[in-house]
This record gives sequence, structure tokens and C-alpha cells, in this order.
Amino acid sequence: MPDIPKSIRITEEGPREGFQIEPGPIPTARKLELIHALACTGLKQMQITSFVNPQKVPGMADAEAVVEGLKPEPGVDYHGLWLNEKGLQRAMASGKLHLEGKVNMYPSATFLMKNQGCTQQQYREIAGRLIEMYKGYGIPMEKGSISSAWGCNFEGGVSSERVVELVGDLMDLGAEHGVAIKTVSLADTMAWATPLGIKRTIGAVREKFPDLRLSLHLHDTRGMAIANAYAGMEMGVDQFDSSVAGLGGCPFGKHKGSAGNVCTEDLVLMCDEIGVETGVDLEALIDAAALAEDIVGHPLPGSVMKGGSLKSLRDKLAVH
Amino acid sequence: MPDIPKSIRITEEGPREGFQIEPGPIPTARKLELIHALACTGLKQMQITSFVNPQKVPGMADAEAVVEGLKPEPGVDYHGLWLNEKGLQRAMASGKLHLEGKVNMYPSATFLMKNQGCTQQQYREIAGRLIEMYKGYGIPMEKGSISSAWGCNFEGGVSSERVVELVGDLMDLGAEHGVAIKTVSLADTMAWATPLGIKRTIGAVREKFPDLRLSLHLHDTRGMAIANAYAGMEMGVDQFDSSVAGLGGCPFGKHKGSAGNVCTEDLVLMCDEIGVETGVDLEALIDAAALAEDIVGHPLPGSVMKGGSLKSLRDKLAVH
Repeated sequence: MPDIPKSIRITEEGPREGFQIEPGPIPTARKLELIHALACTGLKQMQITSFVNPQKVPGMADAEAVVEGLKPEPGVDYHGLWLNEKGLQRAMASGKLHLEGKVNMYPSATFLMKNQGCTQQQYREIAGRLIEMYKGYGIPMEKGSISSAWGCNFEGGVSSERVVELVGDLMDLGAEHGVAIKTVSLADTMAWATPLGIKRTIGAVREKFPDLRLSLHLHDTRGMAIANAYAGMEMGVDQFDSSVAGLGGCPFGKHKGSAGNVCTEDLVLMCDEIGVETGVDLEALIDAAALAEDIVGHPLPGSVMKGGSLKSLRDKLAVH
Repeated sequence: MPDIPKSIRITEEGPREGFQIEPGPIPTARKLELIHALACTGLKQMQITSFVNPQKVPGMADAEAVVEGLKPEPGVDYHGLWLNEKGLQRAMASGKLHLEGKVNMYPSATFLMKNQGCTQQQYREIAGRLIEMYKGYGIPMEKGSISSAWGCNFEGGVSSERVVELVGDLMDLGAEHGVAIKTVSLADTMAWATPLGIKRTIGAVREKFPDLRLSLHLHDTRGMAIANAYAGMEMGVDQFDSSVAGLGGCPFGKHKGSAGNVCTEDLVLMCDEIGVETGVDLEALIDAAALAEDIVGHPLPGSVMKGGSLKSLRDKLAVH
């Protein structure tokens, strides 16, 4: 296992991707309570809200209020999500967020046409305009992502060759606009990946682009997220998105097929036990997971929040 | 990934290990309903009840009634569990079960003393008498197991060297009694394993005992079971215990720290997607998981039963 990284960087997605899917309105104060608890665990990167159309995503209508209420912890980068220039302007106006430009690619022409009403070529032009927008605002633009990189509910499985091609498109697009894409996030948006598929695709991308930093965004709809994260680590991946308590989908029937990202505390436990540094205090994170469950008012799927850490067991043994 | 087996053998544990932990009494007829549904999925090995003290495990008091009501499917081996000669005699009397002898080893002297009131040496004598008992009854005796092979809540982590030593003890004990142990099950009883730990221990055991067949029994208390199963497959392991819907612990607080075995349908989905034969029809298994949830009357932790299979998505895409 020579490629397992010594440390990984975790971006917590719970307060954004997690709360966004909850049916009930969550008071801004409670969102801030969770964000604060998470920022005190040692997590250094956190997505806290979306600047999107409140009519389409009512749960994110308080984006400005969340940022206004934020009491930033030193050393923590708070991120927001936006989908267009208006969203970006709102994020910039809030004044407290860590801003990074990013462009996305989609393997599926069907998905693009259904959801954004454009062809691959048209989408490429939109992405080019996004890059110019970031340049115009002086926002660092070094990141790309590939959605549904292992499969898509509209077109089926995605081959590693196709992902390599799309990563190449991203690099070319960046180059055309004078920016160098340094990190690419591969997203298993619709939970089609297996550990073997992770290894194949990461291996193919790394072979072609050895200097590119890779990040994984893994949904747990089919229970594979932690196995996929470990497979990624064996391939040297050292950046992961994750979600406290597994927030981000309702695994109890209401949102069938849409579980959240890999559970943050399960990922941290695995790292602690295999000697990979995360900088996160697992016991504090378990408390934050319990808080998340209290806030949403229904059981959340994380395991370690129920089963406990191994360190706590070892500490007990040491005392007796 | 050269060692991933072409096929694996799954032993379903849900009707025994799963129902045993449920607080409410489950009617025998409903247990039989699940056993029948599971036997129709293609699962060929299934543990259906325990012949244990009904005062200690009230949920298994109907062991004889379960076997009496059983309508065996051709080709399916129905197993029972016993802990002593009396239990074995009850299992034999039932007349429909597949009987296999097995002896167990424990890494933890503390656990042995606390739970069985004996030293390692005394336990070794008990195990020897068990082997003689199987021989006396003409029951095949080719299996051993190591409990808590990655760690124990009473003594902490267990090293791969200690497991190799215990496997050696098992082989020696068999040899002393004229039986050859051909398969050893390594059980992560208390959920201390990580994928890296799985690889280390399996690697160490295989190096010393290259002809020994290994089986894994993986609890999911800390969410690692599916990652551990995949790590085992990469090391060539081709026998797994599992539990439909993740039955076997209450992940919602009541039985903290005691989740069930790796979820059968999540394991089967992973195998389907990476080309490992299980002989199991995943759609039928998902229906059985829904039945299990209906029987216990509370949400169960399996993922694929909620998220659905990928084959069903592919089939839909093929139609449109």
C-alpha cells in the first residue's frame, strides 16, 4: 500500500449539501450552531451555504443571513456554492467567504440537454465564460470537476477513458483561457462507483496527468462511499469531500437514491486507525454529528456516531 | 487487482444473528417468511436459528419450531448455531439442518475469563473436547474461527502476528485430534478492523498458511464492513458472512456499538458491479431486505435496499 497519503484534506459539505435536501426549514441559528461546532473540530475547509435561486432551493434562502451570522474560527476556510454570476456576486458581497473558481464537465450529453438545455459544445462555451468571469473578478481559478464520473442515471456507466478525455478537455479549456487547472475533483454524483472502478479511473487519469491533484466527491447511495474513499487513498488521493453524520439525503425512503457524501466521522475514524492525518478531533466530530441529528430531527446514517471511536475504547482500557 | 476471486460464497446470517438482537418477539411464521424469501434469491448458505438457552436468548426459543416449519429449497444449506453438546443434539434432532463442526479461538484472555470463566489453556481443552464430540457424532469437522481478530473491547487491538499464532494453535489442535482444519473464519466481532488491517492480517495468515481457505465475518458498527469486505476480496478471500438489510444490531441507539454483519445486498451489488459471481439475484434480495424491515418494524441500515441497484437503472435506460 505504498500510495496511501500521510495526510488528507477534508472539505465538509454537511451544512450546504446536507441541509439543502432536508424537507423542513432549518432555522439559521441552528445552521450556525452546527457550522461553529464543525469549525471547532479541526476541519479547515467547509461549504456552508449556496447562493442559488431561493424559489428553487428554499432551504438556502438564508444564505446571506448564514454568512452574516458566521463567527469565523481562525484558520478555517468557509466556502459557498454558486451556479452563475449573480450567485458569485452574492457570495462576494457577503465578505467572509473563501472564494475559488471552478469549472465543471459532464460526461452525459443527455443530462446536459435535459438539465441545462445545451449541447456539450454550448456548455464548453458557458464554462469558458465562467473562467473569464473569475479572471475578471480576480478570483483564483485552478480547479475543475467531472460530475457523474463513474456513471449517470441518464446515460449509464462512464468509462475511465471518457473521464481521461474530459479531464483533458478541462485542461485544454483552462489553457485556452490562460489558466492552469491544478486540481480536478471526480464526483460520483449518482453513486455508480465501486472500489475497483475508483482504482481504474484514478489510475487512468494519473497515468495521463501525473502532476494533477485529484479530489473525490463520493455519494453513499449504495453504501460504497467509504470503500471508494479507501480505494482512492490507496491510489494516492488526498482530498475528499464528506458530510458530517452522512447528512445530505434521506436514507429512510423520502429521497430514494440520494444519500449524502461519505460520512465525515467514519472517514476520520478510518484515517485515524490507518495512520493518515486529518487534523480533526474525532470525539468533537462525533458530538457535532449528534448535533446534526438533533437539528434535522431524524436519524442520520453515520456509523461512528452510533458505534463510537476506537480511541475512546482504548482510553477506557488504559484506565482500568 | 490480481487476487480478486471470480466468485464468492455468501453465508446469510440475518435470520439468526439479526433476529436474535431484536427486542420484540418475532413470530415464527414471519421468520419463516424471510428465510423462504432469502432461499429464493440464490443464497445457498443460511444460518436460520440458534439452539441456545431460551432464558438467555428468548428470541431463539422457537428454534425447533423454525426448523419444523422450514420448507427447504433444493440446493440450499440451512445452518443452525449451538454452543455446547446439548445445543448440537437439538440441532441434530431437528433433522433438516446442514451440520458442520467448528472450533473457535479467542485472542483475549480477559474476554475468555470474563465470559467463559476459563484460561486460554482450559479453553483449549474445551475446544479439544468439542472436536472429539463432532468426531463421535460423525459430523464433518474442518472449520475454525478466530473471534475479535482485529481488536477486542476488553484488550484492545489484536496484531496480525497474534492472529497467525492463533491460526497455528487451531491447526495444531486439529492435528492433535486427527482432523485437518481447512477453512478459518476471521471475525471482526467488535468492529475494530480497517481495510488496511484486513490486508495486513490476511496477508500474514496467507503467508504462513498458503493452503488455508479464509472466510470473513465483518461487523459494521463503525461503517467499515463493506470497505473491509472489498479489501478481503483484493487479498483473494472468497467466503463471507453477511446479513440482509444489515440486520443484526440496532443502529438507532438502543444497542450502541453492535451493528450487524456487512449488508448482504450491498455486498452483492458490489460484486455484481466488479464482476464477481455470487449466484444471488439482487432484485429479489432487495425485496427480501424490504421484507426484513417490515418484519422488525423499524428502519434497517442497508443502503442498496433504499438506493436501488444499478442494473435496474441500466435496464430502464435500455428501454427508453
